Amino acid sequence: MTGVERDRLARVALGRLAEPGDPRFAGLVAEMGAVELVDSLIGQRDLGGVLVDIEGRVDAVGPERELERAARAGIRFVIPSDEEWPRQLDDLAATEPLQNRCGVPFGLWVKGPLRLDELAHSVAVVGSRSATSYGADVAADLAAVVARAGHPVVSGAAFGIDQAAHRGALAVGGRTVAVLACGVDRAYPMAHKTLLDHLGAEGAVVSEVPMGCSPTRLRFLARNRLIAALTRGTVVVEAAVRSGALNTANWAGRLNRVLLGVPGPVTSAPSQGVHQLIRNGAATLVTSGAEVLELVGGAGDHLVEEPRARTRPRDRLSLRDQQVLDAVPVAHGARADSIARTAGLGLLEVRSALTRLQRAGLVEAGEAGWRLAALAHT
Amino acid sequence: MTGVERDRLARVALGRLAEPGDPRFAGLVAEMGAVELVDSLIGQRDLGGVLVDIEGRVDAVGPERELERAARAGIRFVIPSDEEWPRQLDDLAATEPLQNRCGVPFGLWVKGPLRLDELAHSVAVVGSRSATSYGADVAADLAAVVARAGHPVVSGAAFGIDQAAHRGALAVGGRTVAVLACGVDRAYPMAHKTLLDHLGAEGAVVSEVPMGCSPTRLRFLARNRLIAALTRGTVVVEAAVRSGALNTANWAGRLNRVLLGVPGPVTSAPSQGVHQLIRNGAATLVTSGAEVLELVGGAGDHLVEEPRARTRPRDRLSLRDQQVLDAVPVAHGARADSIARTAGLGLLEVRSALTRLQRAGLVEAGEAGWRLAALAHT
Repeated sequence: MTGVERDRLARVALGRLAEPGDPRFAGLVAEMGAVELVDSLIGQRDLGGVLVDIEGRVDAVGPERELERAARAGIRFVIPSDEEWPRQLDDLAATEPLQNRCGVPFGLWVKGPLRLDELAHSVAVVGSRSATSYGADVAADLAAVVARAGHPVVSGAAFGIDQAAHRGALAVGGRTVAVLACGVDRAYPMAHKTLLDHLGAEGAVVSEVPMGCSPTRLRFLARNRLIAALTRGTVVVEAAVRSGALNTANWAGRLNRVLLGVPGPVTSAPSQGVHQLIRNGAATLVTSGAEVLELVGGAGDHLVEEPRARTRPRDRLSLRDQQVLDAVPVAHGARADSIARTAGLGLLEVRSALTRLQRAGLVEAGEAGWRLAALAHT
Repeated sequence: MTGVERDRLARVALGRLAEPGDPRFAGLVAEMGAVELVDSLIGQRDLGGVLVDIEGRVDAVGPERELERAARAGIRFVIPSDEEWPRQLDDLAATEPLQNRCGVPFGLWVKGPLRLDELAHSVAVVGSRSATSYGADVAADLAAVVARAGHPVVSGAAFGIDQAAHRGALAVGGRTVAVLACGVDRAYPMAHKTLLDHLGAEGAVVSEVPMGCSPTRLRFLARNRLIAALTRGTVVVEAAVRSGALNTANWAGRLNRVLLGVPGPVTSAPSQGVHQLIRNGAATLVTSGAEVLELVGGAGDHLVEEPRARTRPRDRLSLRDQQVLDAVPVAHGARADSIARTAGLGLLEVRSALTRLQRAGLVEAGEAGWRLAALAHT
């Protein structure tokens, strides 16, 4: 057996021995390597007090069988020495725990044709499970634009924003990946089984948790760090003040990823968490997929023109005529000599300008004198 | 006649000779004083080429008559040497022109009992004339909170956000001031005559433009600098990408005033300009009157607690019980020994914790084992 395959088996075993993102195990793997760590643990050597936690788990360890079973289900286990390994995950090695989760995963279970090294330019779109239709629509549109530009969209396959993000990317034939808090062979939430099957067939479903495992709060917290670490940037679309999406956002910030937030009505509870992120300077406000691309794309890849108002009739006037137009009263009327005084121009000049402006439909002459026409307001 | 009264008459005269915010006149007043400038101009001395512009205006100059007429209408003319003068306007002396308007006004025509030196802690609430009902409601609520805390609300009496801001302040018996682009004796827009009468009776209506003058585009641009300069901070509630409110915002930034923006749906055109201001870092995102007070109030005057989620049932648990709860599957069921492994705790300990959690309604026991109850999700 090659060293790589021994390493792979040890990492599969670690997935059964440890909870994902357990800071102690992450440290031990970095220190002594997966193979030696597993040998020590199975040999009952207590390292940093973890033995008590794995008691009762050791009987679940059977990595060869587990890999065979996975292969039959079309599931692979990708480890750091594989070419497919997403290098950006290694940034997790240097992080401090957040809610007691941290570290590089031992490996990733993957179901689907998309290779994980395609995620180098991916974008996470995450948010509230109890999204509004506004939030879901914005997430779907934004994910479609990002995916169409060639950036895979990563999310968590949850209700609400996650689902809308995957759906938006799929709608344009884009790449999209779900990172789960349970085994990739399970459907959580159950209502998203079709979506997950679809992602497993066209994109990828990813988890560091072994097959068959249920989602728990701890595993969601661990999963969130993977979404942040796998992607170049995280877009939070709607997130109440206490929301898993804010945990993902927090990880994105710690990992120096781009963190973006989509605002919404201040009266909408699901936008409150996003507004806090923007207000505190943690996230940059974005309003469109194009703005997301500008901020997460390679430098200069996607330059967005700021929305500008369309050209108005007054923009086509000579500067002199604009000056006269600016001096015409908005309401009531004024005589040409009064307008000339206001504009600081000669009377003859002003008279000929007013005639031109009248032909252009910008001013109108009434009994009380010249006044702006409706067109000049637009 | 005292020097102050000669200065006042000269400044009234200047209001007739010059357009508001004309950079040349502002410079000349600063250099030679109002009295000498008016004497020179009436004596036909050309200074910086302004003589051609005042030709035809000189016959309108009659400052004594003008002050008498104003006094009869309950209108006063406040100049920099008056005790009532709002000192913060002097910041305009150091500014470069924006759209060719700048400078300290010669004086301010005021109708209403509110003294201008009460505006040191005032807040401007401005925005789109074509506001949405969302924007108008937010502006009114925000103005009410600001006014109730004792900060006068300044705006422009226009349709939309301006009107809502004045209305919000009036509704709580707060102080509010309209700064106009026309004479304070005129009602623009006409539909706001009642509002303006009300403001003139309870707060103040202010303008640097002489009585009887109509609003023009130039005068709106000049007026916007006054709104920004008079106040401690400007809140932009809704503003399309081309909007007078953004001109006011620009002035607030140049004058180092606090600039705040209220976000809205990214699909709403009237919020686009505000989102740009926040995205570019020009404005800070705010979502409530309390947040406005925190940022424009005196240091520490108004400290806002960030919105937090209410306490959840899990927050009242011991750390040990939380650890067990975190390890209980979200869906499906798990046996106590599996939960013990996930939590990294002993089986007996986990069993007694599960019983406590069940009594608290946080977990439920089914055929397949323990799972989270609905309450634990909240």
